[in-house]
Amino acid sequence: MIKIGIIGYGNLGRGVELAIKQQPDMELVAIFSRRGKQGVHPVDETVIVEHVDDIAAYQDKIDVMILCGGSATDLPQQTPEYTKLFNTVDSFDNHSQIPTHFETVNQIATDAHKISVISTGWDPGLFSLTRALMEAVLPNGETNTFWGKGVSQGHSDALRRIAGVKYAVQYTIPSEDAMNKVRNGEGHDLTTKDRHLRSCYVVVEDGADLDVIKETIVTMPAYFADYETIVHFIDEDTFLQEHQAMPHGGFVIRSGETTAGVRQLVEFSLALDSNPEFTASVITAYARAAYHLNKEGQSGAKTVLDIPVRYLSARPYDELLEQIL
Amino acid sequence: MIKIGIIGYGNLGRGVELAIKQQPDMELVAIFSRRGKQGVHPVDETVIVEHVDDIAAYQDKIDVMILCGGSATDLPQQTPEYTKLFNTVDSFDNHSQIPTHFETVNQIATDAHKISVISTGWDPGLFSLTRALMEAVLPNGETNTFWGKGVSQGHSDALRRIAGVKYAVQYTIPSEDAMNKVRNGEGHDLTTKDRHLRSCYVVVEDGADLDVIKETIVTMPAYFADYETIVHFIDEDTFLQEHQAMPHGGFVIRSGETTAGVRQLVEFSLALDSNPEFTASVITAYARAAYHLNKEGQSGAKTVLDIPVRYLSARPYDELLEQIL
Repeated sequence: MIKIGIIGYGNLGRGVELAIKQQPDMELVAIFSRRGKQGVHPVDETVIVEHVDDIAAYQDKIDVMILCGGSATDLPQQTPEYTKLFNTVDSFDNHSQIPTHFETVNQIATDAHKISVISTGWDPGLFSLTRALMEAVLPNGETNTFWGKGVSQGHSDALRRIAGVKYAVQYTIPSEDAMNKVRNGEGHDLTTKDRHLRSCYVVVEDGADLDVIKETIVTMPAYFADYETIVHFIDEDTFLQEHQAMPHGGFVIRSGETTAGVRQLVEFSLALDSNPEFTASVITAYARAAYHLNKEGQSGAKTVLDIPVRYLSARPYDELLEQIL
Repeated sequence: MIKIGIIGYGNLGRGVELAIKQQPDMELVAIFSRRGKQGVHPVDETVIVEHVDDIAAYQDKIDVMILCGGSATDLPQQTPEYTKLFNTVDSFDNHSQIPTHFETVNQIATDAHKISVISTGWDPGLFSLTRALMEAVLPNGETNTFWGKGVSQGHSDALRRIAGVKYAVQYTIPSEDAMNKVRNGEGHDLTTKDRHLRSCYVVVEDGADLDVIKETIVTMPAYFADYETIVHFIDEDTFLQEHQAMPHGGFVIRSGETTAGVRQLVEFSLALDSNPEFTASVITAYARAAYHLNKEGQSGAKTVLDIPVRYLSARPYDELLEQIL
């Protein structure tokens, strides 16, 4: 059994706890949190919870530590720090900072003879893998990524800051028109704004002026003004019943030509009832790769682009050749 | 530049010639055929064509040999033979024989210090990669593969053997109903027959009895009797204009649950105007991996499951981290 630890227990950490249960060759040793024992309530009440300050005692008891903090402030500090002691996996998703994060973690992992798989999940992660693969196969083409249908936390927060709004959620939705243009190889000029709609579900305070709120939303610079934005006013019960989940998903589409007029279309898509649970499932599978790569004597930072798919599987290679290939 | 050779010049070999032109870091050194110079007419007339008997003279002039023969009789003999002299890539697609082929080629490649990437293309190939990846990420789920819309050569041949049939082609089409069942996690009991329709386009000889031909088709055991089969009688001009291409494609769908009732859906799909040109594009990208792996000192047989995606890309790793991840 591969012995796993979790650092950080929000939605992602909880998802990793659940994902480990589904993997036949993994066991969860402990959850570490800054909140300590009292602040964390695992799904499985028997799971050991420790304060992060006590983590060093687990150096020989855990094969891979899965880091479930946020990309803004947690991971830039935590991944380097804990890779000194453990093989690690993170879901660092600040795209522009990935090269710097890679370099920092690579140096530490190499020195410590550990593996650190950074920036796993679905984007960056499985979507990145698809983008790199399809560009290599179809050099004469274009790749477009569409996100959604899914909740955008930043845009939902922007709605909730408007006076008179009680609850609100914003779903980013890929534009069907834009997807079809891309499929036909006519996506050259599409911007992110052309590719997505913004659908808002809003519950207002008693007496609020719906017209004013709607106008405030659709004209809000940076967030909504440049997008096709749809505002739905709903009642509180409907909101609480139907808009509390964390769905997400998206499409990576590459449309290319192998000779003039011969179109080859590749699509990879996700439709997720729970974004954090799926992300957790991906990073948990990459924890297996971290374990096996390190067992083979490898070290350093790795990304999804470095890791053969066989290392993600719990099955022996012979069986993959027979049943999957 | 990576120096490439092609053995065999049918639709696939021609596709590889075209694919190499699209790759910035590859050049085609020569095409080898049992037919020799006179029997082969490359798209680019300046390309050198040699008889396969003269291949040994190219041992130091070619980095990777791409084998474009058939899986029934060519590749089981050619891949072992030419891997003694060259790094090789093949598209061996006889699924049940893959483990044996792997073992044979692995021994020879290891002894010769060469890399042989076997069974690339899209199925086996990119579809296999997706099946292995998604099963690892979502262990609690089901994977279903759908093929089409695409031409089935075997079924088209069966139609043409019927008395009174002049031209015919059969398209395998994925059933939309079955795909939706799979997406909803209700695909447990679906057989290959439930998942596909068979659509036949038939041109008859003058005076042929359409009812008899249609009945012969839809009741033909093994080929059509157990499938939903649609027969379209068309005229010769329409056939020659609209049914000469080699489209294909398909879907790999994994539907899983991370917790009870929380469904996570992953799809990978291809819609190909030309099956041989796309397959050729995939195996050409894997030729790059064969080259780089061998340069690093690796040897043996490899499959898509063994090869990190970074090895398929013509771009430097730094750039992939910055622009693709």
